[in-house]
Amino acid sequence: MTMKELPLAKVYQLLEPGPVVLLTTVDKGRTNVMTMSWLTMVDFEPPLIACVVGEADYSFAALRKTKQCVIALPSVELAEKAVAIGNCSGRDVDKFVKFGLTPLPAARIKPPLIGECFANLECKVVDTRLVSKYDLFILEVVQAWIDPKQKDPKAIHHKGNGTFVVDGETIKLKSKMR
Amino acid sequence: MTMKELPLAKVYQLLEPGPVVLLTTVDKGRTNVMTMSWLTMVDFEPPLIACVVGEADYSFAALRKTKQCVIALPSVELAEKAVAIGNCSGRDVDKFVKFGLTPLPAARIKPPLIGECFANLECKVVDTRLVSKYDLFILEVVQAWIDPKQKDPKAIHHKGNGTFVVDGETIKLKSKMR
Repeated sequence: MTMKELPLAKVYQLLEPGPVVLLTTVDKGRTNVMTMSWLTMVDFEPPLIACVVGEADYSFAALRKTKQCVIALPSVELAEKAVAIGNCSGRDVDKFVKFGLTPLPAARIKPPLIGECFANLECKVVDTRLVSKYDLFILEVVQAWIDPKQKDPKAIHHKGNGTFVVDGETIKLKSKMR
Repeated sequence: MTMKELPLAKVYQLLEPGPVVLLTTVDKGRTNVMTMSWLTMVDFEPPLIACVVGEADYSFAALRKTKQCVIALPSVELAEKAVAIGNCSGRDVDKFVKFGLTPLPAARIKPPLIGECFANLECKVVDTRLVSKYDLFILEVVQAWIDPKQKDPKAIHHKGNGTFVVDGETIKLKSKMR
């Protein structure tokens, strides 16, 4: 599992399509991972992200305290695992062990990358003004990685109630859209 | 084109998958529409959305001033039009006319629904604290509509540089995930 650096200006191409992602944190040596799909790009470079991590989520305290996380992108082959990760809590179990995920050291922060994911984004919390009211964090991506061995990975998108749609056909249209 | 009311508790099912959307505004009798894909759900009910409308976008001033917009969801059949809408500005052209879009009256706000879209969300701006720094608005959905005649619409997702991925296979997994 050798990750390749991705230029920060390309990070939006990973998140703008709205994939289900995994979020890793670490606090007092205890790593955790949760499943998330409430996030959006906010700026291109440095890449900024807005994401919602609920106060009831076990990851919330670690994220607020350490201000660091990794956002990792699972392909459809990991869909069942991503859902199972979302269905249990780090309060009760070490999810890296339970789900056979490979933690890899990040370059600039303490939470681990996930070896099985096709992309990993090292993030720092840069704005917490909307945390108390909406559980909404603003993150800056400080380093980005892709797995060059995963060719054309298909992301998954959550439609609610356990229904997911998988990336289908790719179309190319002449766009100047941001 | 008869729209059917959608319960507000189901709105997240439309946006959580990360579709490209259209955003309508009206100011001084002048309607406009832009293409957007930087948005995320923030809460279930009432449904809250965070979205980025750039200060350079013509819609920005109307949205900030009137605090109202419609978020409309185009299916893949409208993909070329959605991109073309994103490639020109309401400063220069009436995009409803140019692209043959049908404005329909909203129930609770002034900006129009788009008759050709498979869903329309009437929104009010409820928080502007992150507008000055990030162009990020918090919206509340006050009324939601779907077009019952559009069965199983396929949304599109922007991957950057005019590349879009179309909704593919739907899978059902046992999820308690939010």
